[in-house]
Order: sequence, then structure tokens, then C-alpha cells
Amino acid sequence: MGSSSGLLFKVTTFGESHGPAIGAIVEGCPSQLELDLALLQSDLDRRRPGQSHLTTSRNEGDQLEILSGLFEGQTTGTPIALLIKNKDARSRNYDSVKNLYRPGHGDASYIARYGIRDYRGGGRASARETAARVAAAGIARQYLKKQFGIEVLAWVDQVYTDRAQVDRASVSRAQVDAQLTRCPDPKAAQRFETLITQAKKEGDTLGGIITGVARNVPAGWGDPVFDKLEADLAKACLSLPACKGFEIGSGFAGVELKGSEHNDAWQAPVNPMSMPIATSNRAGGVLAGISTGAPLEIRCAFKPVSTHFKTQKTVNTEGENIEFKNEGRHDPCVLPRAVPLVEAAMLLTLMDHALRTRALGLSRN
Amino acid sequence: MGSSSGLLFKVTTFGESHGPAIGAIVEGCPSQLELDLALLQSDLDRRRPGQSHLTTSRNEGDQLEILSGLFEGQTTGTPIALLIKNKDARSRNYDSVKNLYRPGHGDASYIARYGIRDYRGGGRASARETAARVAAAGIARQYLKKQFGIEVLAWVDQVYTDRAQVDRASVSRAQVDAQLTRCPDPKAAQRFETLITQAKKEGDTLGGIITGVARNVPAGWGDPVFDKLEADLAKACLSLPACKGFEIGSGFAGVELKGSEHNDAWQAPVNPMSMPIATSNRAGGVLAGISTGAPLEIRCAFKPVSTHFKTQKTVNTEGENIEFKNEGRHDPCVLPRAVPLVEAAMLLTLMDHALRTRALGLSRN
Amino acid sequence: MGSSSGLLFKVTTFGESHGPAIGAIVEGCPSQLELDLALLQSDLDRRRPGQSHLTTSRNEGDQLEILSGLFEGQTTGTPIALLIKNKDARSRNYDSVKNLYRPGHGDASYIARYGIRDYRGGGRASARETAARVAAAGIARQYLKKQFGIEVLAWVDQVYTDRAQVDRASVSRAQVDAQLTRCPDPKAAQRFETLITQAKKEGDTLGGIITGVARNVPAGWGDPVFDKLEADLAKACLSLPACKGFEIGSGFAGVELKGSEHNDAWQAPVNPMSMPIATSNRAGGVLAGISTGAPLEIRCAFKPVSTHFKTQKTVNTEGENIEFKNEGRHDPCVLPRAVPLVEAAMLLTLMDHALRTRALGLSRN
Amino acid sequence: MGSSSGLLFKVTTFGESHGPAIGAIVEGCPSQLELDLALLQSDLDRRRPGQSHLTTSRNEGDQLEILSGLFEGQTTGTPIALLIKNKDARSRNYDSVKNLYRPGHGDASYIARYGIRDYRGGGRASARETAARVAAAGIARQYLKKQFGIEVLAWVDQVYTDRAQVDRASVSRAQVDAQLTRCPDPKAAQRFETLITQAKKEGDTLGGIITGVARNVPAGWGDPVFDKLEADLAKACLSLPACKGFEIGSGFAGVELKGSEHNDAWQAPVNPMSMPIATSNRAGGVLAGISTGAPLEIRCAFKPVSTHFKTQKTVNTEGENIEFKNEGRHDPCVLPRAVPLVEAAMLLTLMDHALRTRALGLSRN
Repeated sequence: MGSSSGLLFKVTTFGESHGPAIGAIVEGCPSQLELDLALLQSDLDRRRPGQSHLTTSRNEGDQLEILSGLFEGQTTGTPIALLIKNKDARSRNYDSVKNLYRPGHGDASYIARYGIRDYRGGGRASARETAARVAAAGIARQYLKKQFGIEVLAWVDQVYTDRAQVDRASVSRAQVDAQLTRCPDPKAAQRFETLITQAKKEGDTLGGIITGVARNVPAGWGDPVFDKLEADLAKACLSLPACKGFEIGSGFAGVELKGSEHNDAWQAPVNPMSMPIATSNRAGGVLAGISTGAPLEIRCAFKPVSTHFKTQKTVNTEGENIEFKNEGRHDPCVLPRAVPLVEAAMLLTLMDHALRTRALGLSRN
Repeated sequence: MGSSSGLLFKVTTFGESHGPAIGAIVEGCPSQLELDLALLQSDLDRRRPGQSHLTTSRNEGDQLEILSGLFEGQTTGTPIALLIKNKDARSRNYDSVKNLYRPGHGDASYIARYGIRDYRGGGRASARETAARVAAAGIARQYLKKQFGIEVLAWVDQVYTDRAQVDRASVSRAQVDAQLTRCPDPKAAQRFETLITQAKKEGDTLGGIITGVARNVPAGWGDPVFDKLEADLAKACLSLPACKGFEIGSGFAGVELKGSEHNDAWQAPVNPMSMPIATSNRAGGVLAGISTGAPLEIRCAFKPVSTHFKTQKTVNTEGENIEFKNEGRHDPCVLPRAVPLVEAAMLLTLMDHALRTRALGLSRN
Repeated sequence: MGSSSGLLFKVTTFGESHGPAIGAIVEGCPSQLELDLALLQSDLDRRRPGQSHLTTSRNEGDQLEILSGLFEGQTTGTPIALLIKNKDARSRNYDSVKNLYRPGHGDASYIARYGIRDYRGGGRASARETAARVAAAGIARQYLKKQFGIEVLAWVDQVYTDRAQVDRASVSRAQVDAQLTRCPDPKAAQRFETLITQAKKEGDTLGGIITGVARNVPAGWGDPVFDKLEADLAKACLSLPACKGFEIGSGFAGVELKGSEHNDAWQAPVNPMSMPIATSNRAGGVLAGISTGAPLEIRCAFKPVSTHFKTQKTVNTEGENIEFKNEGRHDPCVLPRAVPLVEAAMLLTLMDHALRTRALGLSRN
Repeated sequence: MGSSSGLLFKVTTFGESHGPAIGAIVEGCPSQLELDLALLQSDLDRRRPGQSHLTTSRNEGDQLEILSGLFEGQTTGTPIALLIKNKDARSRNYDSVKNLYRPGHGDASYIARYGIRDYRGGGRASARETAARVAAAGIARQYLKKQFGIEVLAWVDQVYTDRAQVDRASVSRAQVDAQLTRCPDPKAAQRFETLITQAKKEGDTLGGIITGVARNVPAGWGDPVFDKLEADLAKACLSLPACKGFEIGSGFAGVELKGSEHNDAWQAPVNPMSMPIATSNRAGGVLAGISTGAPLEIRCAFKPVSTHFKTQKTVNTEGENIEFKNEGRHDPCVLPRAVPLVEAAMLLTLMDHALRTRALGLSRN
């Protein structure tokens, strides 16, 4: 339970921050997909630590190994096992965190659930586990692109209190990746970098907002009433470390519009048998839980990183009040590295719904 | 697919707005639970249409029938079938909507997915289906209360641009239900009523925000990494009709705090072997996907009702641009009636995680 | 848990023998299927009690009601709720079984699991629940027939120690239904009837074997390694009341052949790109968990009915040794009425795998 | 889909016969279980090839690596990743099988399903994948033993037409493992060895029957109506390579008894509040799908190995009739090595039901 995602494109992950390896088994990948391994690796490279002075200095190559499910470059329809060895898991002394509950972390809640925790580097609760999701999502990305022309793209839209200006319709992955902060608004990117550098200097941390879009998603994906497309997207996003909020389309701002202002008008399609075209996208690409053919547009709030370097009040495992200060290698702001995570959340959700939709057997699917 | 929710407390719903009945099968309810049927019915009564001048005038008694799983007043551990007959499904003429796609509704997306739709009253996409969820959640409410003392409570916190002032810690169901608008801040409740009445007069509709809390949830519930408690809560909320956003704890506002401001400090518990106590609740009751023992605090954004009474541009099923105006009975603002829906989303999620946690077998669970 | 079956064609049943109704929700049925309701009812009629002097005299019309998922005669892709009211649930005195554990029945094991049991007519453990499966399977039958030409047929092959001679390749439903005992070998049918009548006279009961075939199942269905087609068939059959054994193809007898005798030789197909043709069918239509295009051939063993009318030693709910004798209306041999159950087990399994296979997206599926 | 098993104790396997590795992820293992790694390895050693002159000469150490979920010798409640590298996957020439469909194997059915197959050593269809199940089941064995005292034991009961005499109640694992053929009847073991040696000499292969028992299973396990304990056992067994039949308790032989002969009489337990005691075990330890506390007793039929060394008629991938003869290393009879597979099927089923039962929360569970 808990480490599997998806009904048909089923991804099961494993691994702790300081164990021998992390990885995933991907079930349900259609056969005869030509996998571009370099592209898969490049997805991982966008997430890995040590990319720039803005991120943790932990240095993991995150070299992907595929142990099964691939034959002569093609998927075989059998489970694809993905393995990423932990290399820079320093055998340092964990006494400083072993006997206490760090604020903002899962130390205490893991003990409440399991009675035991692997305290080395956060164990299973470390964001390191997300590498396995990103690897699995890379397979989904290639399939969705090839089969439907789907493009999933996310970027940093806000850091702390500062917001970028981005045209959701035209922004490209090249523009996103051109910036260390993964904000495609170059001026905002510059400001974000300054903010993050300043926070790092202060021993503090920052949060922010990531926007994600998925283009060319066919109309008709989503499974009411419980597995609505936006419901599964929300779940995937809220399962990301540090994510505290999700919205689709107009989201929270939409409540300040009236119904007559909020509805997206329909316009006749060129082919009268096709879906009508939405002339605006406050819906964010879904109506009644099903995609409309308009781009999916979501936003995710990430809290500031819990591991800052100021003194904090907390409790030790003996149940005594103590003061505590973090050490070690940590990101002052996860937003740049969280961009591929939001994409992964969208990709895994879309891939599962692609297969679910096909199972229905409607000729147009 | 799609109409089932939960791994162990599994709820499967059925029914269309204008079919003979709606209902649900509840699997996994622990046996020997003494069910209070009047209390179950009262949960339904809070959701049903026709409660006040603020809601639709459709008049459904929503009388709950239990067809199985109950013997001499107790649950038997076998599936509980819940049935609610549709009574006031007027056999009116649906020609006005039959041949067009209403903006803001699932008319077109249902056709894209299924190639056919029951256009009478929105069919399966009608919010009427949520009565079945509320009924099922009523069972969860009774179990969670009895077994753990859990109390789940939601209320209207914002309508349109106007916000209430509510003390999350002390607010009670009596205070919520004392107001037609289900906003426990009496002044705001009055303003909301005025806003809604005004919108109704204009033939327009309003959205808003509902806050939900769950008190006395034990520490240790939630199933990382994909089925984190907040992830399942987000999914349950985003599966509600018209819900466009979800946040837990500090949510979107939390990104404007620094890490040193955001972390909730831990304080020593009275019993040193117990969970530490959070001195604030920006986490919203979860850390790393697992409950901490602090109250769960969530917020859901609901878009303004899509069925307003102003002229709209849309497309008919022949693919032609047309103008269209709604008729019939509809809520100008769903927020008051959505309160039990948000509670149902929380209750179903918590109930499933209660059973999942118990399966782990940790002595304290 | 427990009352749902299938991943994509998901059937959830409910109901007790003497409650107000039994029924099922069918999720995942493809949309735009024209349902023949008379045909659905006829499937139920084959299972219902009171058909002949060989079966229980309980008289249930088993009239099927469809509460949702159907619009203008077609499935809509939304859940289909099936309801069968219990009519002849006599309000008799159950004191004779209320306080004891009947041998061969689930009285004691239900108490061990749930701590409570609805003792009226066996409650949930009554074979009456299978009516809901048969109804759901009737939908699958119509889809599989229309989409793939699949024909599923079962018959009584053995009663007690007496075996019929049936040509699996040519036997038809008409031949099966021509006999009260549902054995298409007329001479054996006659002998079976004598055996059953004799057992009834003695107050005793008989078991037997049912054979089932599925013709025109396309090659390529089945999901190794855990959800092999034969594995899901075995599960579906062993979940039928009184079923104690399952075999496919050569089954238990096949162990007495050598490998060189057992393998079915392949023969070139007419179209060289098609599947090769098996010249014999010891495999029973599956290899490595996947259908080959040859007919599926299975056999199920049903123990003699546990409710006989001779004196038995048992224990009461006070834990005391007692003697006990059954009363009431019961089948001396369930085999004739179990024929539609075996068909239902096959149909539900095949339907789910039809959808699972289509989700894979291989062009030929 | 297809490579996962279990609802709560969820095992997902991966790997091909001649890929880099096989393995599994085990989710849902309760935390704080002290794992005996040597015992885990010994379970694998019983299954591995190259154990004796009766088995294939492929030489795999099957050294188990654990990549996650274990900390300081204890399970942490997080996924346990199991890895077994393929060492003796000879890079030989596969041209002899690459372009044809071997009778009795999944070559053609895999192509029908996936359009592609890894033909090296049978790929995913190789029985080599069962090593991953055995490893996962080893964890279940340790938990079930420790928590409930459950003992699961299987043995070879029949080879070809020859049957052993074994006392199901008293037979021990030591007696089973004392014989190369894993038949605890020493005389039959000797005869089986002769039979297998003879078949090997002839280039032929043999099948047989394995009996499995599970002792000390508490009453109350099993999830009617679809996930009855015997249904899940049947599925687990039929998912084993070469398994063609399953029976529980009296099984197929039971149909030749009358009801008055078949029912197991109940006897008063010592503690009157306990389950009654069955004085015989034709039920095989289950009634109405739920365990009774009596030993589970099942039997599985395994067809003769499909890879014999006599000339066979078959078809090549061009669709032409050809003659074909196997080469390479293969077992003349899988029965001795299938003993741990049947135990694994039982262990995985029981472990999942142990957790499912605990989720119900009945005090006695």
C-alpha cells in the first residue's frame, strides 16, 4: 500500500535516501515502444542534486539502469524495473538527528505510524524517492508524446512573495531550462536567484509556486465520479514532498468571479463532429472531471524547505524539550528541482488515464 | 472504474439525476457497529435540495433505504447497500439542452468520453450523485466518532470576494447549522445571504471557499509515498463537483513564509512516550504524508455555479454556434449545500486510512 | 473488500438471503451497448429457484430492475445498478438454526470473522447472492457476443459417481437447456434425474462436476504472471458456493501423460500472420497464462449440498455438543442451477480481460 | 497489471530469464519484523536450479539482495525491494527458438498479446520469475510463523501415475527435504526418482501433484463473496507455471460422496467461546470462504514439462509447418522444485488475508 500509483500504468517505487538504491517497477507500459534512454536520463538529470549553486551539494549522478521489460530497445509489455544506485550517501554520523524529531519533517509521524524510522537522510521520507517517479514518468512522457503529441511542461511561477509573468500558451521547455531557477520569465528568474541566494546566506529557506501545463491532451480523459482527471492530478501533486496546495484552471482566484464571468464559452469547431472549442480556459482543461481538449493548467504550492539552519525548538525521543540546529547539505529552495516532479505527477496521471480511456473502447479513443 | 473510492472502506456509487434512484454499496465497514439511522438521515438532510430560499427548489426527501449489511441494528461486515429514490425528477421537456453543450458543464466532455449522455438534469454529472457519498460518509462518521472520537466539521468561509472570520479551534457544528449559509460567523453569514440573494435576483451565481477540520485524528494515519493523507484528501475534494482548488494547512499562503517562520515547533508531550505536540499548525495536521495528531485543516475552492440565467454563447450538437439561456431549478450558490460534501470527502478518506492503519498491526494503532 | 470482482469490468454485489433485496453495481461497461433486457432476465431465470421438482421450492421471480447506467436502451458508460427484490423470504421461525453451527455451512466461520451473522436463510453466505453475479454476467455475455462472437456454455458432466458423455466441440445451449438436469447427454440426464430424485427421497444430497467452454476467445487475453487467464478463471470458480476444485484443459488427468504426449502440436494457420492452430487442446485454451485462440475448457467440482435432512452431530452457540436435523426448502443437488454460475464466472473473467487487453493498445486487440 | 499480487501485502515482480536480474517489491510488510536473512536465502535455495541430477544444470546461486525497507535488521514498514541477479544466463545462440513457436510454451500467445517477445530462455514466461515470488513469500513465512505460529508445508504427492502415501497431519519439512524428490514417503520418493531418471534418459518429461497444508491458520480469514480464501488460493496456484488444476479438501473426489458423508461434524471446543472443532477435514479448512481453524489442505496438478527432447510438429514465425527439437538445460520434472512455489502461493495468500482480517478490527483478530 502507499507506494503504488495508477490503475493500469502502475508505478511502484522503493528506496531510502541512504540505502543501497532507489527505483521503481513500471507495469502496464504498452509494448513495442522504442525507448530513448538518453532522453530518460535527461529527465533524471533535471531533478538530480548538485546541479547548481542554488541546490544541495549532494552529488548523485542518478544513473538509470533498466533491469527488465526492454528487449532490443523496445518495451515488451512486461514490467520495467528501474534502478538508481545511491552513490554519495555519506556514512556520516547521524547522532545529531537520530534522537530527536525535526520540526517540519516526518520524523515523529513516521514513528507514530511504523514505530521505527531510518533516520539517515530522512529515509523513505526524503525527496530522494522522487527520482524513481521521475524515471517512471519519463517513460510515460515518451509514450504520450509519440501516441498523442502530448507535451507536459512546468515552471517556477513564484518564489516567496515574488511572482513571474509567463505566457502559459507559448512558454517552452527551452525557455524554462535556460534559467537555473527554471522560471522562464528571465527578469523574474534573476530576482528569484537573488532571493534564493540571500535566503541561503541567512541560513533560511523559501517556498513558491509551480505552474504546469499539458498540451494536446485529447478530450474525453478522466473517470467520474471519484477518479476525475483533476482529482487524480491533485492527488499526484499533493503526494509530492512539501506540496501544500493544488488548483486547476481558475482555482482559488476563480471564486471571486460570477458564474456569468467564469464559464468558458464554446465555439464551433472546424469539423462539426469534433469537440467544441473553449474560447477561454478558466476550466483549466477539464469539465465534470473529463478533459475538454483545452490545455490542462494546474498550480502547486510548495512550502519553504523544512531544513533551515536557524535554531529551533523541538523535542527529543525521550520526550524532552530541546533546542536544535540543522547541519549538512540541503536546498535553500526546492522549486527549481521540483519542476520535474510536477511534470512527473502530471505525466503519470495522464498515462494512466490514457490507458483507462482506451479500455473503454470508444472508437475515437 | 471511477465510481469507487477507497481501498478498504470501499464506496461504489451509482445513479443519474433523473433515473429511478441513486445509491451506493459500502464495503469494508467493520461489523458490530450499531448504526444510528436517524443520524444517517440527518446527514442527508443537510445536503438535500429545497432546504431554504437560497437553494434549488427541487424537492427531494432523500429518504435513505438500507438494503443489506445490517442485522438487528448492527452492521454485519457484509456490503451495505444504500438506496435513495429520485422522487421529484420532473418529466419535463429537455429539448432545450438535449441538442447543445452547456458552457461550464460536462455535456461535451461526456460525449467525448462515452459517445452518449443522459442529458436529463445533467445525468451522472449532476451533483445529485453526491447524496450517495454523503450517505456512505455518514456511516464513516459514526464509526470514527465512536472508535476514535473523531469530529469532522466544515463551513463556508468565503462567498465571492467576502470572507468570514472563524476560529478554527472552537467552531462547532451547531454554530454552522444555525446559519442558512452554513457560515458560523453570524455577521458574514448575513452578508453572504445578501450576496447570494442578490446574485439570484440578477440570474447570476457565486462560488466560494469551504474550510474543513478533523479533530482527534490519531497520529500515524497516511500512506507514503503516493497515498499520503493530504494526497487522498485532495483527491476526495477535487472529485467534488465544481471544486477547483485544495490546500492543507498554510496552503498557498504558506509560500510567502520563510522556512524559519513556517515550521511548527514541537513541544514535549505530558506523557514522554506520546507524540510531541505542535505549538502551531501551519502543517495542517500532516507531516510527510502522515497525521501528527494536530487537527487536519483543509480549504476547498468552489467555482460559481455553471448554471446561471444570462445568455451564453455556445455550440449545438450539429457543431453550430448558437446563443443559449438556462431554465429550471438551480442553486445560485452551492456553498451551503457543499459543506456536507467536504465533510464527506474527509470522512471517507479518514475511514479508509483508519482501516489501512489498523492493517499494519502496530500495537498503538 | 471481498464483494468486488474485476479490475476494469468491476462488479460489486450486495445482499442477504432474507434481506429486502440483492443486487450489484457494474462499473466499466463500455458505453453504447444496446442491452437486451429480456435476454438478461432469461439468464436469471436459468438460475432462479423453483424451476423444477429437482430444485428448492422457494419461489423467487428474480425480476431484474436496472436503476442506472442505461439511457434509451443503451449503456452510458456510467455504473449500472442491478436490483433483485427478495419476495419469498418467509418470515418463519429461525430458532432451529439461530443458536447452533450447521455442519458444512459458514455459520461458525462467519462468527469467527465478523462476530455476528444474519442467520436467516444463510444470510450473505446463501447461494442467493449469486443471482447478482448472474445478472452482471448477463451484460458481459451480450458484450462479448456482440464484440467478439464469444460463446460461453456450461453443463452438468457428472453427478455423484455417474459421468456423462458430451462432445465439447459441438454441444449447444439448446441441448443443455433441453434437460432439467442441464446435462446435454440425454441418457446421462435421465440417470442424473433418477439419482437426484432418489437422494431427495433419502433426505440426502449429491454433488458433481460442471464443464464450461468459451468459444471464439481471441488469442492474447490474460495477464502474466499473477493474473493469468486460468488463474482468474480459477478464482472466479472457487468463489462459487460449494466449489471445491478447478481444472483447465487436461487438468488433474494431464499429470498422467508424458510431455511428449501432452504438448499440443501447432499447425500453420491459413493466414501466415495469424496465430498458429493447436491440433489438440490439452492446454485448455491457454499457454503461459494467455489465451491461444483455442476454446477455453474448464471443469469445476461441487461438493454435495451441505443441507441434507439426516441427523448430524454439531455444537450450539453455547459450545455444547448437540444433535441437529435440517428443515425447510433446499436443493438436493445444486448442479443444474450451478450451470449459469460457472458461465457467470467465465463471463466476468473474460469481460475484464477483454477490457484489460484493449488497454494495452496492440493494434490487433 | 498482472505482475502484482495482494491487496495489502502487495508483491510486484519483474524480470526475464536472461535479463540482468529478477526481483520484487514487497509493500505492506508490517514494521519492526526482525528478518532472518539466512532463512530467506534458504527458501530460495530450495527453488534454485542445479540442486541435483534431477533438475536443470543451469547454475544460479540466486543470491538475494535487499535494497530497501530494512534498517538495523528490522522492517521499517516501507517497500522492501528484493533483487536476484541472473548469473548463468549463457550468451548462447537463440536462433533455434527465435523464429518458431514451441508447443506447450507461451511463445505464440505472448506474441498475440504483446506483438514482441524476449525469446531468450523463455523471457518473462520462464519459471525463473518464480524466484522473486519465493523470496517475497519467505518474508511472509517469517511473519506468519512469528505472529500466528502458522506453518506452511508442501510436498510431491504424485509423479506421473505413481502416488505416495503421506500422513498430512504429521508430515514435516525435514521429512520432505530429506528426499531429492521432496516426497516424504521414502519408498515413493525412491520410485519417483527412478521415474524421473528414466524420463530424462528418454528425453521425455513428467508432471505430477503437489499437496500443500497450512497449519495453525486462525479461524476467520477469507473475504466472501469473491475473495474467499479458497478462491485466492486457487488463483495463486493457477498462476504458477504449468499448474493446470487445484482442489481444496475433498476436491474432485468429494463429488462422489453424499452430503451426509461429506459434512464434517462439529465437536465442542474446550473453551465454549472458541470455534467448534471439526472432527474430519473434507472441507480442507474453509467453509463459505472463511478459514475454520482446521488445517488448510490443497492439491495442485502440474502438467509434464513442455520442454522435452523429442521431435515435435510446430510452426515458425513465417507461418510455415516445421519440425523442431529442443536443446539446452531443462528439468525433466519440475515437481521437486515446484514444492517451494506452492508454499509461496499459500504464504502470499495467507499473508494478505492476515492483514485484511486485521483491518476489520474484530477484537479476536
